Amino acid sequence: MANRILVVGGVAGGASVAARARRLDESAEVIMFERGHNVSFSNCALPFHLSGIVEKSEDLVLICPETFKKRYNIEARTRNEVTKIKRDEKKVVVKNLETGEEYEEKYDKLVLSPGANPILPASIEGIDSKNVFTVRNVQDISKLNNYIKDNNINDIAVVGGGFIGIEVAENLHLAGKDVSLIEALDQVMSPFDYDMAQILHKELYDKGVNLILNDAVKKIDQEYIELESSKRVKAEAVVMAVGVSPETKLAEEAGLEIGETGGIKVDHNYRTSDKDIYAVGDAIEVFCSITKNKTRLPLAGPAQRQARAAADHINSIPHSNKGIIGSSVVKIFDLNAASTGINEKTARKAGIPYDFVYIIPSDIVGLMPDSNPLYFKLIYEYPSGKILGAQAIGKGDVAKRIDVAATLIRMGGTLEDLKELELCYAPLFSTARDVVNQAALVGLNILHGQFEQVPVTKVRELVENDAFIVDVREEDEYKAGHLKNAVNIPLSELRDRAGEIPEDEPVYLHCRSAQRSYNAIMALQGMGYDNVCNISGSFLGICCYEFYQDQVTGREKIVTEYNFN
Amino acid sequence: MANRILVVGGVAGGASVAARARRLDESAEVIMFERGHNVSFSNCALPFHLSGIVEKSEDLVLICPETFKKRYNIEARTRNEVTKIKRDEKKVVVKNLETGEEYEEKYDKLVLSPGANPILPASIEGIDSKNVFTVRNVQDISKLNNYIKDNNINDIAVVGGGFIGIEVAENLHLAGKDVSLIEALDQVMSPFDYDMAQILHKELYDKGVNLILNDAVKKIDQEYIELESSKRVKAEAVVMAVGVSPETKLAEEAGLEIGETGGIKVDHNYRTSDKDIYAVGDAIEVFCSITKNKTRLPLAGPAQRQARAAADHINSIPHSNKGIIGSSVVKIFDLNAASTGINEKTARKAGIPYDFVYIIPSDIVGLMPDSNPLYFKLIYEYPSGKILGAQAIGKGDVAKRIDVAATLIRMGGTLEDLKELELCYAPLFSTARDVVNQAALVGLNILHGQFEQVPVTKVRELVENDAFIVDVREEDEYKAGHLKNAVNIPLSELRDRAGEIPEDEPVYLHCRSAQRSYNAIMALQGMGYDNVCNISGSFLGICCYEFYQDQVTGREKIVTEYNFN
Repeated sequence: MANRILVVGGVAGGASVAARARRLDESAEVIMFERGHNVSFSNCALPFHLSGIVEKSEDLVLICPETFKKRYNIEARTRNEVTKIKRDEKKVVVKNLETGEEYEEKYDKLVLSPGANPILPASIEGIDSKNVFTVRNVQDISKLNNYIKDNNINDIAVVGGGFIGIEVAENLHLAGKDVSLIEALDQVMSPFDYDMAQILHKELYDKGVNLILNDAVKKIDQEYIELESSKRVKAEAVVMAVGVSPETKLAEEAGLEIGETGGIKVDHNYRTSDKDIYAVGDAIEVFCSITKNKTRLPLAGPAQRQARAAADHINSIPHSNKGIIGSSVVKIFDLNAASTGINEKTARKAGIPYDFVYIIPSDIVGLMPDSNPLYFKLIYEYPSGKILGAQAIGKGDVAKRIDVAATLIRMGGTLEDLKELELCYAPLFSTARDVVNQAALVGLNILHGQFEQVPVTKVRELVENDAFIVDVREEDEYKAGHLKNAVNIPLSELRDRAGEIPEDEPVYLHCRSAQRSYNAIMALQGMGYDNVCNISGSFLGICCYEFYQDQVTGREKIVTEYNFN
Repeated sequence: MANRILVVGGVAGGASVAARARRLDESAEVIMFERGHNVSFSNCALPFHLSGIVEKSEDLVLICPETFKKRYNIEARTRNEVTKIKRDEKKVVVKNLETGEEYEEKYDKLVLSPGANPILPASIEGIDSKNVFTVRNVQDISKLNNYIKDNNINDIAVVGGGFIGIEVAENLHLAGKDVSLIEALDQVMSPFDYDMAQILHKELYDKGVNLILNDAVKKIDQEYIELESSKRVKAEAVVMAVGVSPETKLAEEAGLEIGETGGIKVDHNYRTSDKDIYAVGDAIEVFCSITKNKTRLPLAGPAQRQARAAADHINSIPHSNKGIIGSSVVKIFDLNAASTGINEKTARKAGIPYDFVYIIPSDIVGLMPDSNPLYFKLIYEYPSGKILGAQAIGKGDVAKRIDVAATLIRMGGTLEDLKELELCYAPLFSTARDVVNQAALVGLNILHGQFEQVPVTKVRELVENDAFIVDVREEDEYKAGHLKNAVNIPLSELRDRAGEIPEDEPVYLHCRSAQRSYNAIMALQGMGYDNVCNISGSFLGICCYEFYQDQVTGREKIVTEYNFN
């Protein structure tokens, strides 16, 4: 047992280590040092203060130092910064930021949970202006909120289309502000592949967020920002959310090993290269159990798990470290967007052979109110069928489907396993064959060579090359909007009109959501056609993929009318 | 390949077999015989017609025979009843119920999907009255709905507190009717244990449903029904939903083997004792992969899976039959209630050694609007920690948690696996440590002997025996409602006031939801107390367990005031 446990950082990871350490050893002395004003605040809820969903910034603080002391007998010293680790003496040097006083504390075990810093690129002119904000703690969000209110600000630019950027943009929009969201990459939300991200782009566009992709901030002024493209965007306040860098200074200066990703290197038990010093949370690098690579994953769930594991190890309790897979969810206006495991990009980068399924079934029984399309993408290892990742977007319960996929990934499940899952069903909650079951069935069909598919990303090319495309929806659906050169042969007329389909060139089929086109392909193959191929995602997927790109580029539409229902 | 496939029954299972058979073999002749008026209607959505959520009864019919023919080249003969199977000739005898004509059809493979019949106990006087209804098909629900409207009926009794009974009761209540729900057992919804069912009872009571438990119908009259207890309940219409019995007449008469549970016996591939006859859906008996017993499970999801497997086997495609675990969900007014695997009752009956966890954490981050308690019970095998079942009730996303548990059960997961699941988190969707993770942690603590627990079901006994109970909530919480003889020592004062706690008799601790009492127990144990024990479910659980029973029995309350938040 360690009698004196010092913890650097008192938010998610740090507070969890301290509380667990107390539970495991009532006699231990546990002290948390937090540079900021608060311990244990709800990082993840910070953006919600901007819309007033969390009305008072004080509410974001979950437990004050007094409560820590009284409930857990943990000393929480806020505004006290650990400035140095004297490893040979097993001491830390602490600076009281209120008084300026410096002092030392001895430790038996030291746990580092310093977190990560918002990145503020020095290359941006004006990055130090007083109208530039970040969102790391309660003070940050209060400052931003007060600045907006005190100066009656209307136009705000959010730079960075990740979780924080998106949530800040939405909450500012809910507060009635005109928001520009600027992302240097060609898409927001990197856990999603480019095709899925288009659905998010459409939602942001539909809701009136001024979304700018493929462009970076060059200069920040009081009234506007200037982008690399020379475009000017009106912005009286700027929120920088381009990412975070792990806070490793203290660890580095103490000679602790830093990993290849720039995070503090830890072993199986979250121990650094010094056996008496642990590190957890956003500052460390973690092991991805899918790619087998080191990575960083600044999320609250893993931080809590790491914190518990470190406290357990300090108290000689074994822990099974399974690495991370990365699961997350975000609300983007009317859509929920969740993902787990790896996406196509990551699979390619890691050299993992894969294939994918993209389906858009109803989230619940179509007869029920609030039934909506659920955009679901499943990535699996080829040829094993092992589930590698999943992405889901829709108005309905996407988190449920992603949590199921995350569970299966953790358990090493395959398409076969996913197909067999017996999930709970009632018309208001799902369909008898749930989205995830259906994705597995489609995946198995592809894996077993029952039919072939092209992704929605290739449809423009097909249309431009005048490929033979058959739309098997009913005539009224076709008339309401269709691919420009698609031939309409409804599934209900297919057997009579099969003669219209050529046998000597590739034929691409789609319907609304790929269910009817699947039946059509099986029928045609049964008649001897070996040149038919399904468009994965079908018309719903095509429209969602094309819509936003069409709006911003003004390029020629490949559909007569978009249709998203 | 079978060239002629006949299917008896054209609803969930039958229609699925036919469609899959068509996809797998374009040249096969596929004919469905359905005694009723419709094939492929949405059974599960039937009750929603009563409230008008599904406005027109026609909307309940998903695909008409014409569409079956045109889209899938499947002949669907409604109002045609297969009356006999001539196994030696591989023929069925069919009766056209419209014309009375009888004819025969040859088959290569025959698939039985006759479903199950609502039970109408002959012992009930007046069971044949014209104001007695069942809910099996579109005609049934239309008839009931029209009867209510045409006769301007206000008082309706629903007999049976299972899925159908509950959904019918709720939809009638939504339609403004006065509804009595009568259940012969001591609880509704048998997938839930008695403790969890109390939460459902409370909801039905709160919403004004006249819930009557432990009582059966003796006599049905035009204006009222009379119960075994001699109680009279006003009811101008009665809906019987006491259960279903598998429709096995055709199979029995053909000499096919019937299983021990009364369902048609099938093998791994859903083949009956005749190798050319398959059976799927509500009429068959299935294998429970948890108890290893035969059982029946009349649900849509499994029926679809069985249908696909049968069609696959007919077409020589292998299928992995993993048995069933039983997952389901139902909305009961403002609550959602879902379960998977086995409950305590079933574990005991099957002789499976088990223990359980009952926790009531928040479904999402407490700061967010619509954060609510989620009642979660987890059953695991003792001492292996293998997950056996889960039950969840709450206003929030219970289906998600149960689907995760269902996935884990299917994959043979343990408490360790559940603890390590990396699920998607954002404040609007869950908590950084999700409900299921937390349940696993508590389970592991119990398994590892870190603390002991008593269930909420034992608290009344403790109170009556004047046990030493410590309520570790803050004083204001205690004052707002507490266990009658509990001593209030807030966690925040525990270390100073530990001297008030005896060391020579059992001491039971609780707080609101067992988080603080867990910390208190660990602290006390750290101080040397070996006589402390947690009340699982804590004050929230106690209130929910006691409330409805108190209301109906008028027995003495064990709390000063109920508190459910």
